[in-house]
Amino acid sequence: MMVLEYLRKVNFYETDAQGIVHHSNYPRYFEEARGYYLESVGFPYPKLREQLNVDVVLLSLSVEYLKPVRFGDTLSIKFSLVQSDSYFFKFKYDVFVESSLCAVGETKHCCINRENRKVIKIPKELKERMK
Amino acid sequence: MMVLEYLRKVNFYETDAQGIVHHSNYPRYFEEARGYYLESVGFPYPKLREQLNVDVVLLSLSVEYLKPVRFGDTLSIKFSLVQSDSYFFKFKYDVFVESSLCAVGETKHCCINRENRKVIKIPKELKERMK
Amino acid sequence: MMVLEYLRKVNFYETDAQGIVHHSNYPRYFEEARGYYLESVGFPYPKLREQLNVDVVLLSLSVEYLKPVRFGDTLSIKFSLVQSDSYFFKFKYDVFVESSLCAVGETKHCCINRENRKVIKIPKELKERMK
Amino acid sequence: MMVLEYLRKVNFYETDAQGIVHHSNYPRYFEEARGYYLESVGFPYPKLREQLNVDVVLLSLSVEYLKPVRFGDTLSIKFSLVQSDSYFFKFKYDVFVESSLCAVGETKHCCINRENRKVIKIPKELKERMK
Repeated sequence: MMVLEYLRKVNFYETDAQGIVHHSNYPRYFEEARGYYLESVGFPYPKLREQLNVDVVLLSLSVEYLKPVRFGDTLSIKFSLVQSDSYFFKFKYDVFVESSLCAVGETKHCCINRENRKVIKIPKELKERMK
Repeated sequence: MMVLEYLRKVNFYETDAQGIVHHSNYPRYFEEARGYYLESVGFPYPKLREQLNVDVVLLSLSVEYLKPVRFGDTLSIKFSLVQSDSYFFKFKYDVFVESSLCAVGETKHCCINRENRKVIKIPKELKERMK
Repeated sequence: MMVLEYLRKVNFYETDAQGIVHHSNYPRYFEEARGYYLESVGFPYPKLREQLNVDVVLLSLSVEYLKPVRFGDTLSIKFSLVQSDSYFFKFKYDVFVESSLCAVGETKHCCINRENRKVIKIPKELKERMK
Repeated sequence: MMVLEYLRKVNFYETDAQGIVHHSNYPRYFEEARGYYLESVGFPYPKLREQLNVDVVLLSLSVEYLKPVRFGDTLSIKFSLVQSDSYFFKFKYDVFVESSLCAVGETKHCCINRENRKVIKIPKELKERMK
């Protein structure tokens, strides 16, 4: 299991009137992290969409918010593919600011044909690179 | 247990290049629904913040995405407070488009003092109205 | 010239750490207002996209921010189509909170064919309703 | 006049159902670019907020959208401070994808005291670094 680290500064527009990052941004950070994963394994998401006509969809999402994150913080998202079969795959994410664990999350996905949105097997070009 | 229905049109800016509502909007819809709940029980969130100096924070979030939702759809979010003690409370949400269940979600919350962000008991002014 | 009023509560997730609505939300409010315009003239945007295969694009945008808007406020957006020829059309927007003018904006648009993104004349089905 | 270049990949969640980046993201990209400017002149925005108790506010914004930008694109935002007196300052932005100019924008700002939101002179600590 490969653990990747995705670094990401907090943008001001991601904060809310509580003075912290709004919770709805974490699913977006996780999406960015998955984009980084696909690049790291040599199959960037734009390529997946255009060459294989495949979209990745989110089936479920969970986040636990442990500590608030603020403007000026840099997030270190340590994450990995924790499960995968022919159709489905899961990622887990730990969001740190410095050594402090601020949130944990999990997402479950599958692939679909872009035309008809039918669920398909994970394309072998992607599957063989997943680790 | 009171079940509320929050109706909400999909905005174009909430869609993504898959042609569907981006998953990061559902936590925002749930937040809107909770705002509607607080109004319905007679204690709107702005009042909670200003009169009692209290913020509501999100401790955890989960969403299952069952069917895509599109621009032009009107969401019917049926939701209720499903659990509550002196400190914590949970909401469950069913997101429908017409009679079709498109997503289910759950959020867990507590209240904090706005100055020091310490967890506090649910203020009695709110607690006595919760149902 | 028809002046429409679009009412819209501020959502908490639209605020930022300055405690006010983040400026990037105003273009979204204007888009919602235009959606309301298209409904009001009897040609909702989803219908325009699906029946005529037409998209409306934004060519330019300007906003002047006069007073901050906060969570708890209800926006009254008074707006109208201020200019229109065969290809292009402009809207102007005044954003009020109660009697206080908080922002003014302007947007310029044209229509495109959804397949090839070529600029087309405003479809006559829409043009004849515009006022 | 210093011209800076801020590089930024498009995130999937920034696209819309037209398959392009939604226009409301450009003001956010400009904000990120200004953050990069403040870092480049040695006075990051979080420091400005915390050490000097100063917020920067947006007074006006304009964007011209010349060509659509898509997922998979990397934006090169070339921008500079084009005007500045004791109170006000303006930035201009050119957004490129490769050699193609896709959008131009302008923003006008001033500084405020964070407590009372009164307009103040640009703090000398910042002013002396602006170029």
